[in-house]
Amino acid sequence: MRLAVMGAGAVGGSVVELAADYGHTVTAFSDSRSAAIDPDGLDTAAVLDRKATDGIVGDEAPEDALQAPYDVLVEATPTTLGDAEPGFGHLKTALQRDRHVVLANKGPVAERYADVRELEAESEGTVLFEATVGGAMPVLSTIDDFDPEHITAVRGVLNGTANFILSRMAAEGLGYEHVLAEAQDLGVAEADPTFDVDGTDAALKGVIVANVLADDGREYTLEDAEVEGIQDIAGSALELAQEEGRTIRLIAEVAEGEVRVGPRLVPENAPLAPSGTRNIVQLETEHAGRLNISGRGAGGPETASAVLADVGRLGQ
Amino acid sequence: MRLAVMGAGAVGGSVVELAADYGHTVTAFSDSRSAAIDPDGLDTAAVLDRKATDGIVGDEAPEDALQAPYDVLVEATPTTLGDAEPGFGHLKTALQRDRHVVLANKGPVAERYADVRELEAESEGTVLFEATVGGAMPVLSTIDDFDPEHITAVRGVLNGTANFILSRMAAEGLGYEHVLAEAQDLGVAEADPTFDVDGTDAALKGVIVANVLADDGREYTLEDAEVEGIQDIAGSALELAQEEGRTIRLIAEVAEGEVRVGPRLVPENAPLAPSGTRNIVQLETEHAGRLNISGRGAGGPETASAVLADVGRLGQ
Repeated sequence: MRLAVMGAGAVGGSVVELAADYGHTVTAFSDSRSAAIDPDGLDTAAVLDRKATDGIVGDEAPEDALQAPYDVLVEATPTTLGDAEPGFGHLKTALQRDRHVVLANKGPVAERYADVRELEAESEGTVLFEATVGGAMPVLSTIDDFDPEHITAVRGVLNGTANFILSRMAAEGLGYEHVLAEAQDLGVAEADPTFDVDGTDAALKGVIVANVLADDGREYTLEDAEVEGIQDIAGSALELAQEEGRTIRLIAEVAEGEVRVGPRLVPENAPLAPSGTRNIVQLETEHAGRLNISGRGAGGPETASAVLADVGRLGQ
Repeated sequence: MRLAVMGAGAVGGSVVELAADYGHTVTAFSDSRSAAIDPDGLDTAAVLDRKATDGIVGDEAPEDALQAPYDVLVEATPTTLGDAEPGFGHLKTALQRDRHVVLANKGPVAERYADVRELEAESEGTVLFEATVGGAMPVLSTIDDFDPEHITAVRGVLNGTANFILSRMAAEGLGYEHVLAEAQDLGVAEADPTFDVDGTDAALKGVIVANVLADDGREYTLEDAEVEGIQDIAGSALELAQEEGRTIRLIAEVAEGEVRVGPRLVPENAPLAPSGTRNIVQLETEHAGRLNISGRGAGGPETASAVLADVGRLGQ
């Protein structure tokens, strides 16, 4: 397939780097300031090199990438709240051109799901978004395989930064601020970690799952989620939990039409208490019991793997 | 889709019971002695009732089901070694009629993989077999999503009976024979548990994974697997392991072109040491680290869910 990749961060860059390995060609690639376009396929190594050296990917304007020849638009610009722009506009342009769209950007399916489905219905193109929930983990495709109708609840640890902080606090007996600073030094937490620690990122993922599970056409956005973060958790709370063989994790839960994210007490060594940045999702199924999927929930190549799995599905 | 279901054991029966729930119609259903056929769709409750009451599903001959009108043949007769009959013959007939085949029976893809692929290549039909490895767990579809080329190793606990026995032996300090008898009383182990405890069942699943991963067209059969069972494990071995914070599990591993099954020391509380009958599979991926999938690896409705997920894929 010919890919146009919008967004040159860790995920977009990894998609460009790995595309050929999965049998695909990158015909367009854009960052916020520039684009590189070649209908015959870009020299991806040269383009990534230019990005690393000069800070731009090419000499065209970013929007020109949307008009390039491609089969699949990979939307990997940063997730924004509210109108989900510019990601939503990119998706709209591609669908109106009857092209497929694969999202790594959570915005369009977390904030404007009904609009996305409406545009998709009018297009020959299909929208897939496995990469938006749980990075490398096949969460949405497994829900799809089991049929959303036969999934009764989904819960899990969907933010690796918050999980890293909580597991370090518990293991080392350190305070929140100390561990956050350490996580930032390690590159596990961003300079502005707000969305990771206040639960917003996990809630966006929960909202996307709720949209996929909703069988009554109800649309969920961040406003429908009940969200509490981990910023106010004291080291003493973790110590108390440990005395009872338990620990605290930031758990997202989608069940009975509700999306809830917050710190929860879970048994130590239980599946819902992964260590470090690992994520886990539990699917409660009607006929097949509980299914656990765990893996790396973030990272460039990890999330790019999910993007390329979606591209592969579109090519079948 | 219209389904012909061959085999009226726990899996075949559950497929028939759940088919309508997933939007499908059962037009034919056979056990070893009889068949029920209705091109407009069987009254599945009545057929299952007759099976429970009279021990037969209908008044036709079993083979007549193969000639009924259907889109997908669901092959759920018992797995046999060597020539994989009668399952292989059923698959062959369906493919020659240009119908799809979904296997719950491991035989054809564990013992005659090259023959299956050859018949499939000459047919309009497709063969899927998610249910043959790990029951409800989406193992093969996840391998397919990541692209077999980018999976470097697959290992896991693939037999629930053996896992139940080992975890009970460890937890209760009981001997193998005692726990086996208990498992038989509970219905967790069959009257003849040979294939579960001697590693054959796990090896068949490993061989299927090896066939899917092989990119050089090499065909694997049970003869290519190195297999050791759990029959000779002494309770004292488990006690020794526990003193070091470890336990013993029957692990199947597919890596570097080799299939190995045997008892292995693993850390207690580690993902590879699930308790009871739960199964787990770890996929080592080239770009996305390690992915764990755990869930119910056997059972009628659980395995039927995987069969129906395959049917759903064929309908897309």
